[in-house]
Amino acid sequence: MSTETIQPFIRSLAHTFQTMLQCEVSLGKLWPHAERAPLYDVTAVIGLTGKATGTVVVSFSQSLALRAAAAMLLAETREIDADVIDAVGELTNMIAGGAKAKLPQWELSLSTPSMVVGSPHTVRFPSNVHPVCMTLHTAWGPLALEVGLAIPKSTPRSSELAAQKVAF
Amino acid sequence: MSTETIQPFIRSLAHTFQTMLQCEVSLGKLWPHAERAPLYDVTAVIGLTGKATGTVVVSFSQSLALRAAAAMLLAETREIDADVIDAVGELTNMIAGGAKAKLPQWELSLSTPSMVVGSPHTVRFPSNVHPVCMTLHTAWGPLALEVGLAIPKSTPRSSELAAQKVAF
Repeated sequence: MSTETIQPFIRSLAHTFQTMLQCEVSLGKLWPHAERAPLYDVTAVIGLTGKATGTVVVSFSQSLALRAAAAMLLAETREIDADVIDAVGELTNMIAGGAKAKLPQWELSLSTPSMVVGSPHTVRFPSNVHPVCMTLHTAWGPLALEVGLAIPKSTPRSSELAAQKVAF
Repeated sequence: MSTETIQPFIRSLAHTFQTMLQCEVSLGKLWPHAERAPLYDVTAVIGLTGKATGTVVVSFSQSLALRAAAAMLLAETREIDADVIDAVGELTNMIAGGAKAKLPQWELSLSTPSMVVGSPHTVRFPSNVHPVCMTLHTAWGPLALEVGLAIPKSTPRSSELAAQKVAF
C-alpha cells in the first residue's frame, strides 16, 4: 500500500479532532510497515469493505482518550470506562467516515468499531497487507494511525488523490 | 442481539476446524454480554458490513494457535510468529465466510482480519451493540467466539435461521 492512501485518513483525523474536540493534531513519524508504530492504551479497529478491503486502526494514549471523551461528553473522565470506550469508537467512526467520503472510487462500507483495551498490545495485519502507520501528536497526548488496505490493481486512482501531499 | 445470530458462526467454526484441521470442537459456556468471555493469546477481528453491521472476534489460546497453524502449514510452530498470525487470520476468515454464506439476507461483506497480540487484552464493542460470546473447547486448547451485529429491526429473519438450535 502506498503512503498516499493514508492521506485521506490523516486529513479526516485532523479535521475530526479540530471540529469535534477543538484539538490540533501535528504529524509525527511515518513508519515503514516492517517496523510498525507502537500502539497506545485504547485502540479502535474498524473494518473496511468495498472495492478495497482492509482495516483502519486508531490507537489513543490514555491521557488523550480521557481528555477527548471529556470534551465530547462535557463531563470529567478519570478512567477508561464504557463512556470513554464509546467516545473513542465514535471518534474513529467519524475519522473513517470522513476518509470514506474522500475515496468514493472504492465504495467503502464501515463495520462497527471494536476497541482493544490492555497494554501492551499490537494489532497485526495479514502478511499480504502492508499497512501504513503514523504517529501523531496533540497537546493531550500522542496517538497512532494505521491503515491497511488491499487495493485491486485495476482500481483507478483519482489524479486528485495522487496529487495530495502528506500534509493537511 | 439474540443468541440465534451466533449459531451460523458456531456451525461454521466447527465445520472449518473439522475440515481444515481435523480438530473437533465442543461447545462451552454461552456468556451474557454484560459479563463477556475471557479472551486468549491471539485474537482475530473481522469487520462485517451489509444490511447488518458489526464484528466477529475469534480468540485462540496459544496452544491452539500453534497447533492449528502447524496443521495448516504442515510444519512445526514454536512461537506466535507471522506465519501463525496469518494462519489464525485465514481460519477466522473461513469461519466468517462460512457464516456469511448462511446469512444471505444480510448481504454481508468481510473486511480483512486484524490480529490482536498481547496478553491480557479485551475487545470491547460500542455500548449499543450487545455481542453474544461463547467459549469453545478443542483437544489443542480453548478458544472464544464473539459476534456483535447491529441488525436493523426491519430485516426479516428466515424461518430456517430461527429454527436452528445452539448445536451443530
